[in-house]
Amino acid sequence: MSLRYLTAGETHGPQLTAIVEGMPSNLRIDFEALNFQLLRRQKGYGRGRRMQIEQDRADIVGGVRHGQTTGAPIALVVANNDWKHWTKIMNIEPIEGTDEEKRRVHRPRPGHADLNGGLKYDLKDLRNVLERSSARETAVRVAVGALARQLLEAFGIRIGGQVLRIGEIAAPANNLPLDELISRTEASSVRVVDEETEKKMEAYIDQIKKDGDSVGGIVECIVEGLPVGLGSYVQYDRKLDARIAQAVMSINAFKGVEIGIGFEAGILRGSQVHDEILYSEETGYTRASNRLGGFEGGITNGMPVVVRGVMKPIPTLYKPLRSVDIDTKEAFNAQVERSDACAVPAASVVMESVVAWEVAKAFLEKFGGDSMEEIRANYDNYKRQLENY
Amino acid sequence: MSLRYLTAGETHGPQLTAIVEGMPSNLRIDFEALNFQLLRRQKGYGRGRRMQIEQDRADIVGGVRHGQTTGAPIALVVANNDWKHWTKIMNIEPIEGTDEEKRRVHRPRPGHADLNGGLKYDLKDLRNVLERSSARETAVRVAVGALARQLLEAFGIRIGGQVLRIGEIAAPANNLPLDELISRTEASSVRVVDEETEKKMEAYIDQIKKDGDSVGGIVECIVEGLPVGLGSYVQYDRKLDARIAQAVMSINAFKGVEIGIGFEAGILRGSQVHDEILYSEETGYTRASNRLGGFEGGITNGMPVVVRGVMKPIPTLYKPLRSVDIDTKEAFNAQVERSDACAVPAASVVMESVVAWEVAKAFLEKFGGDSMEEIRANYDNYKRQLENY
Amino acid sequence: MSLRYLTAGETHGPQLTAIVEGMPSNLRIDFEALNFQLLRRQKGYGRGRRMQIEQDRADIVGGVRHGQTTGAPIALVVANNDWKHWTKIMNIEPIEGTDEEKRRVHRPRPGHADLNGGLKYDLKDLRNVLERSSARETAVRVAVGALARQLLEAFGIRIGGQVLRIGEIAAPANNLPLDELISRTEASSVRVVDEETEKKMEAYIDQIKKDGDSVGGIVECIVEGLPVGLGSYVQYDRKLDARIAQAVMSINAFKGVEIGIGFEAGILRGSQVHDEILYSEETGYTRASNRLGGFEGGITNGMPVVVRGVMKPIPTLYKPLRSVDIDTKEAFNAQVERSDACAVPAASVVMESVVAWEVAKAFLEKFGGDSMEEIRANYDNYKRQLENY
Amino acid sequence: MSLRYLTAGETHGPQLTAIVEGMPSNLRIDFEALNFQLLRRQKGYGRGRRMQIEQDRADIVGGVRHGQTTGAPIALVVANNDWKHWTKIMNIEPIEGTDEEKRRVHRPRPGHADLNGGLKYDLKDLRNVLERSSARETAVRVAVGALARQLLEAFGIRIGGQVLRIGEIAAPANNLPLDELISRTEASSVRVVDEETEKKMEAYIDQIKKDGDSVGGIVECIVEGLPVGLGSYVQYDRKLDARIAQAVMSINAFKGVEIGIGFEAGILRGSQVHDEILYSEETGYTRASNRLGGFEGGITNGMPVVVRGVMKPIPTLYKPLRSVDIDTKEAFNAQVERSDACAVPAASVVMESVVAWEVAKAFLEKFGGDSMEEIRANYDNYKRQLENY
Repeated sequence: MSLRYLTAGETHGPQLTAIVEGMPSNLRIDFEALNFQLLRRQKGYGRGRRMQIEQDRADIVGGVRHGQTTGAPIALVVANNDWKHWTKIMNIEPIEGTDEEKRRVHRPRPGHADLNGGLKYDLKDLRNVLERSSARETAVRVAVGALARQLLEAFGIRIGGQVLRIGEIAAPANNLPLDELISRTEASSVRVVDEETEKKMEAYIDQIKKDGDSVGGIVECIVEGLPVGLGSYVQYDRKLDARIAQAVMSINAFKGVEIGIGFEAGILRGSQVHDEILYSEETGYTRASNRLGGFEGGITNGMPVVVRGVMKPIPTLYKPLRSVDIDTKEAFNAQVERSDACAVPAASVVMESVVAWEVAKAFLEKFGGDSMEEIRANYDNYKRQLENY
Repeated sequence: MSLRYLTAGETHGPQLTAIVEGMPSNLRIDFEALNFQLLRRQKGYGRGRRMQIEQDRADIVGGVRHGQTTGAPIALVVANNDWKHWTKIMNIEPIEGTDEEKRRVHRPRPGHADLNGGLKYDLKDLRNVLERSSARETAVRVAVGALARQLLEAFGIRIGGQVLRIGEIAAPANNLPLDELISRTEASSVRVVDEETEKKMEAYIDQIKKDGDSVGGIVECIVEGLPVGLGSYVQYDRKLDARIAQAVMSINAFKGVEIGIGFEAGILRGSQVHDEILYSEETGYTRASNRLGGFEGGITNGMPVVVRGVMKPIPTLYKPLRSVDIDTKEAFNAQVERSDACAVPAASVVMESVVAWEVAKAFLEKFGGDSMEEIRANYDNYKRQLENY
Repeated sequence: MSLRYLTAGETHGPQLTAIVEGMPSNLRIDFEALNFQLLRRQKGYGRGRRMQIEQDRADIVGGVRHGQTTGAPIALVVANNDWKHWTKIMNIEPIEGTDEEKRRVHRPRPGHADLNGGLKYDLKDLRNVLERSSARETAVRVAVGALARQLLEAFGIRIGGQVLRIGEIAAPANNLPLDELISRTEASSVRVVDEETEKKMEAYIDQIKKDGDSVGGIVECIVEGLPVGLGSYVQYDRKLDARIAQAVMSINAFKGVEIGIGFEAGILRGSQVHDEILYSEETGYTRASNRLGGFEGGITNGMPVVVRGVMKPIPTLYKPLRSVDIDTKEAFNAQVERSDACAVPAASVVMESVVAWEVAKAFLEKFGGDSMEEIRANYDNYKRQLENY
Repeated sequence: MSLRYLTAGETHGPQLTAIVEGMPSNLRIDFEALNFQLLRRQKGYGRGRRMQIEQDRADIVGGVRHGQTTGAPIALVVANNDWKHWTKIMNIEPIEGTDEEKRRVHRPRPGHADLNGGLKYDLKDLRNVLERSSARETAVRVAVGALARQLLEAFGIRIGGQVLRIGEIAAPANNLPLDELISRTEASSVRVVDEETEKKMEAYIDQIKKDGDSVGGIVECIVEGLPVGLGSYVQYDRKLDARIAQAVMSINAFKGVEIGIGFEAGILRGSQVHDEILYSEETGYTRASNRLGGFEGGITNGMPVVVRGVMKPIPTLYKPLRSVDIDTKEAFNAQVERSDACAVPAASVVMESVVAWEVAKAFLEKFGGDSMEEIRANYDNYKRQLENY
């Protein structure tokens, strides 16, 4: 039984909740680092008002005592800071009131789950859809991923990411060491390493905003320090690259995912794609390149894992799109719920988080163990096995 | 408990086996159609010798009686036709013999699971890796997908696919009705709709072969006739687009997957990306376009599902790549195991199969039921509910 | 993907938390009925002080709006009312303090998970084990089960239970209609139907308490109104009776479970055990008896489901048992943590709850559907199918 | 992702098939020992004709090469030796023929899944139910369990079992060392340790047979050599005793399961039930008794695991029971399909097998690892950790 988690909560409800199950005991939790991840998700040029009013914070209400995990499930809560304004609209118990007082939604927005969710769940108030399908939920997924990240860091596995494209502005390629990539993107308003690109993207976002439009982009996540052998080819659902693909595609608004050179692999020749195998006594087996992004046969090969995902523009628009009222079946121009023109930098943080989770899960499947001490010993074992191979 | 399956078997072992669990009773099996899918996988310009010698066939050895499913698990067997030549090399029981007689592999091929699998499973004969990690396994995954396809077809859901690119040759865009797309690609040696492109691709593959190289490509799968409401946004692992992403990425040699306009969504503006909602009494809700490829919020929206995947070039090469012998740690030029220069048309069929599976699984989760009759009644219910929404 | 749930929380932590995932939309929640189940768990002759101080209450913090489920995951919180006294001892973040201030436990109690949990998770403070392994967690499992129960009740499925034995005092057999059984046990301090037995059991518990000992017992759960066809024989893990067995055995302190006549089936002859099949046009197929407790081949047969479980005496004792200090390895007489002499009536409520969950899960697997309306239509379909069989 | 398996196949179909997924590499398979387990299942006083005609044998057709596992899924086949007589009746493809030629069953047998399965799956030929619901499937479950057993034996974990009761004849209690228990039960026609009991049981079975009746019984399984710490209390579905309960209850005809003293725990006082904790430097922690059957809090405590299950009499009867024809709705006396009067000794072997599986699964979850070498090292680690605790 692997690491697993469930989340609950609505965007304007009292809180987001997650239960993380299967974490080992004796992992020292860095609370500041945990909340730093939530902060990272909230930053980014182009975010709307909401990001300013809320300073998210993950509270742990189970599974951690005196700063360490106990092996018990970990309950995480991210409170919604403006819940006080929504207690009636989102009341758990029945209320009296007009549609307006309940802020009933009957006008589905294109590009959202509104209409499909309403049809599927037979809900005539589409607020019941949008409250859950909102990307607000990623706040708690980031908290979950932050726990996974702390587990991985204890074994020297580090995760970084960068924005590669926002709309028409692409960042130039770089091959920076991960540490530098992390420090530079952390300093950037749009999570890019290149300052000139940053300026261009900011200006571009300003323009998009002015046009009443929105824009998406491409983000990349890099995981370094992974041992050879996470994931497996033996069954389709053990392939770690495929699990990462699911995790990335499950992020709100993501429409594609690729590993290594990804779609470029459909153009190049075999002799240009594969990573030659080298060996030296100091480093063991290594590769001359990393076009396959750290995976062969669904298993990590010891090279950095490189994943890219594409986020579509946020569908909420000042510039309206045609839609249909579910009450009257009359056409209208789709309403605006929020005001972000670009959430790509935040999406970069979310992607790091979901990738961290999948890697941690595969890590625990590989090494077993119930306490950090036991996992450490098992991990060292395996390292020795690799050296003696 | 959902539809599920497991496969077993090695590329040169006696057989591939699959058990499919959770299929309803009273589905009439079209055996010819089942084997036609296996045949489709074997065709395609650029395949090597093996595809000719073996005419794959899926035998059912459980779960079907007198031509109909019974609700019991279905066991599928795809025999390996040249097993007779491998009975010693792949013997289940211990044999005496030299490394050569056992065809022991100690020279890992870049781009394969060989080395990583050997390290992970502590196997000194890499044949134990490559026999399972080989794409041969997709034969039985196609058989599994063919069952899913027959289930879906009973509800008017149809699946087609096409090759969009082979290496440097891209097919021009088309917007053909699915029927025509299917009949044209079926007639094509490279599964494209355009004859001129076909010729160019054939010539290109010939050249690649002559150069001792290999080439990948991009394939697309289209599913039509899906009801609104498969998959869900309520939890990350219920999103059907994400499950499809996992399934596609789990196909051997796939390095990327996208839905709808996919990576292009990172470039365009919101006003160019989202599909406006229309309504008429005859058709109910529909969309003015299908840029999102049939999904919003991880749920089907009634438009065709459009998925694309990229396959890297087959790593097996006449043109050698550097690698390292695991016995001696000496460098060598990687050996050749097989001779396909291009397997993209086959990959197109495999992708249809794994997508069919994920859709069928989500379909049964939505409609429940244990017999085809019961599912039909539930399905009709839901259709009525949608009409009355 | 089925109905599922996870729980988190410690016995003296701030709260118990559960996330319930997969519930349909548009189920009207009866909050009073939900909390009534928690109250039922707290009652019962023989409970210690804690049961008095805490009046448990389940708060919903996600997945329900204006009194109805939305299809989104439901988050449940049961606060710990005396958390204020434990904020230091159970602090999430690191604290300074002596072992005594931290209430560190180094003396494992026989019959608890203390020692095994400490060894497994490499925990030197056994409080980290006992806080999670405590039966306190059943409070939130009852809340989870209460949701399942409300789902089932909407389809006329009712669940009751009774205590059959407390230590040496067995209740006489009865064959009461479920309604009467429920009303009588609800009025009883020990959840028996027979008043004389109640008195005997109370006196027995008093004696046990006076002796500084503890006592367990046997409880029975009955589910009526189930349709034929929940669960399946087609795979070992689809058998509903077996899933119920797991659920019951997973209740703290349970050591056995039986269905129908259970262990008596090992003594009787076949002709005395099986339930003859009858038919009339009004009732359809029915049985002349219910020795098999509602199951044949792991599927419900339309007769009431009858499950029994045995609870061992609570290991916490005034009367000490030998154990070993994990610091000094010296023997000692096991300490007392709580003061319940008998928790069998509460266990009866917990058993109803976990059985309700398993039945609801199988129910949704059978009928599919995302909203109550859709499930209702599917259910009615199936009823018609049964009638026409 | 844990060890898992699926089975397929009908009692008169060509074969039973299983796929076992998640076994480590480099486990040396003892083929003779594997088939010995199948033979054990076939023996036993009171079995009918079929047991004589078929000598079951499990063939491996995937996942094992040159006598060792490779980490790939293992495919197992148990052929049905009299398939040749059933090729028409059980034909996979449609056949022409009368109901009689198809051996259509329309008369459901009480105590079987026949009627409920027919109603659930909307099957008018109940053969489609009984072919899968038959206990014949346990042949391949025994094969699956035999693999688990070989894994466990490599770590010194041994499994034995005994028959404790057949109908009215109970075996006297014994406290034999496991080795002796195994050798004595292996020599017994009814799998008891006591010769006099054996004679009584044989005579009893003869009488039952003569009376045209059938009889069940109680069986016990013992697992020795388990480390402390398999399973967990942290979540209801990680408790190993509960998983074992599901596995045992899922065996055909089982109606109850208990651990340790089981239902007796409802009668005794706490001071009589719990196992005191002892310690010595040589043995580490141990217990003064084993009333809890090796589990506290759902975790193994290092004492032998003791599980008992009850099997009801085989419902197939010479002595008829009333039932109803599904075509005519007319009452009839239930037909006879097979002729075993008592299958309790076989059930004892099946129970050992399913318990072995659950233990092996929990073992791999605890120790992780992909090869036997790696698991061994992890296991040794943990042993050292326990010693140093």
